[in-house]
Amino acid sequence: MSTLIFGHQSPDTDAITSAIDFAEYKKQSGDSDVEAVALGELNDETKFALDFFKVPAPRVIKTAANETQHVILVDHNEAQQSVADRDKVTVDAVIDHHRLANFETAAPLFIRMEPIGSCNSVIYKMYKEQGFKITPTTAGLMASGLISDTLLLKSPTTTDEDKQIFAELQKLADVDLKEYGLKMLKAGTNLAAKSDKELIDADAKSFEMSGSNVRIAQINTVDLNDIYDRQDAILAAMQEEKDADNYDLFLVFATDILNSNSVGYALGATDKVEAAFGKKFDANKRLDLAGVVSRKKQVVPPLTEEFAK
Amino acid sequence: MSTLIFGHQSPDTDAITSAIDFAEYKKQSGDSDVEAVALGELNDETKFALDFFKVPAPRVIKTAANETQHVILVDHNEAQQSVADRDKVTVDAVIDHHRLANFETAAPLFIRMEPIGSCNSVIYKMYKEQGFKITPTTAGLMASGLISDTLLLKSPTTTDEDKQIFAELQKLADVDLKEYGLKMLKAGTNLAAKSDKELIDADAKSFEMSGSNVRIAQINTVDLNDIYDRQDAILAAMQEEKDADNYDLFLVFATDILNSNSVGYALGATDKVEAAFGKKFDANKRLDLAGVVSRKKQVVPPLTEEFAK
Repeated sequence: MSTLIFGHQSPDTDAITSAIDFAEYKKQSGDSDVEAVALGELNDETKFALDFFKVPAPRVIKTAANETQHVILVDHNEAQQSVADRDKVTVDAVIDHHRLANFETAAPLFIRMEPIGSCNSVIYKMYKEQGFKITPTTAGLMASGLISDTLLLKSPTTTDEDKQIFAELQKLADVDLKEYGLKMLKAGTNLAAKSDKELIDADAKSFEMSGSNVRIAQINTVDLNDIYDRQDAILAAMQEEKDADNYDLFLVFATDILNSNSVGYALGATDKVEAAFGKKFDANKRLDLAGVVSRKKQVVPPLTEEFAK
Repeated sequence: MSTLIFGHQSPDTDAITSAIDFAEYKKQSGDSDVEAVALGELNDETKFALDFFKVPAPRVIKTAANETQHVILVDHNEAQQSVADRDKVTVDAVIDHHRLANFETAAPLFIRMEPIGSCNSVIYKMYKEQGFKITPTTAGLMASGLISDTLLLKSPTTTDEDKQIFAELQKLADVDLKEYGLKMLKAGTNLAAKSDKELIDADAKSFEMSGSNVRIAQINTVDLNDIYDRQDAILAAMQEEKDADNYDLFLVFATDILNSNSVGYALGATDKVEAAFGKKFDANKRLDLAGVVSRKKQVVPPLTEEFAK
């Protein structure tokens, strides 16, 4: 009956490494009966990171209550992004860096959330406050989450504190983090190897916005032409998924991680998307999202406000 | 347009001193454009504490959006316990030690919640982590909040960490905290000076439990006979308020702070109360709550679970 620690569904590198790094934090706190697990298979970027630092992939779980009564959430807090049977277990703690929504408890709990670039940044601060040891491997995993979520400190979610943490992690790590980071990000952009469905599922999150069921997926690439070339097939896969899961809006945006620009595709409440960004979809069904790279900071807030109108 | 910092409605000593202590924390962080305010008049216990340490009472506000766009919540997070127009301002931060409910944001924010005895305990830890200065006055205010919420470390909400913090505050304060604390608690129990309505309003909080509107008030006393003597009038005042505000359940429990026992009165869904505590109201309409002193830890969780059935 270990306490299970996990990040969100469709896990990204910050979700997976946060779970591993916080499990280590709990062990150093004297609570060794914890296990980092995942709510889905690792993506290519995360596989690259764990392979690089020779850390085994966490076990994938679908439900929690069949094996524990206590869980800790990292890198998320919203019910629809969490384990399916969360209401059957007790959430002991949350470490996160997103908005707060769809989360209620019956009793007091530990929560640490900060509006900074990665969940690993928050966890790094907690290690430091407690004077806990950060091995080169843990530093590498923390940096991987930070690099992934901030696109190597280029996303607008990057704070001065993240930059400082990156510099401190560089001193603790055994590897040149910038060079490693670019390799890791590129490892996650091998779009040719993925089906259209895999592309729109890999980094997708669901949001409830004023009663509407909104799905937002992000695809990282080093060349937007790789998206344009298969645009019709991607839109068809989106339509199929939207029909199956009853999304009021399905927004997919592809991000050029080298130039920090995105292009959006949407099905459903496209009027809300146009109003949120003050732009129109063009004749190619694309919405130009110049400068947009962060779902959390640049996409979710304006859409949330638009749905609240 | 200062950022306003405030605790919950019907403020108690921990709510008021947390706002003052966190405003000072923000100032030491270099953010001096903050003001501690209150969502209601001070109770007698809190007045005693502020008078004792010669600290002026915070200004009382009814709404926030008319004077600021940014607020910080201390000692609460639930909408129905907060400022009436909270949805019109941005919550920058929450420091709390209660359950989490009825709170959503559009964007990431700072949250620090811990399941410990007082909000001031959390704030004390934050001061310490940052190496901020704690004056004898601030130590006295922090101790006042901790003493009030834990009934001088006797409530079951008291953790080992709270006891350690109390000992550390004793070293920083200019006064014998145990002797001062008992005087402060007694100053809050002058029931004779209060109307029946004042008694049931002074430390009352509203909760939404599975769609039901639940009101729970606590009255501290050093002699439960002071409650029994005016029980009929208290029940009449409860009935009037329940009708006016449409509570599905109005539970008032009077706590003997010297002996750590309570007696409960309820109107509305009394069956839920009886089921939650596994006891029946007696012929005098009283529910014996031996050993119960904490709304947060001993009353809200079993009731929440009962309403969820």
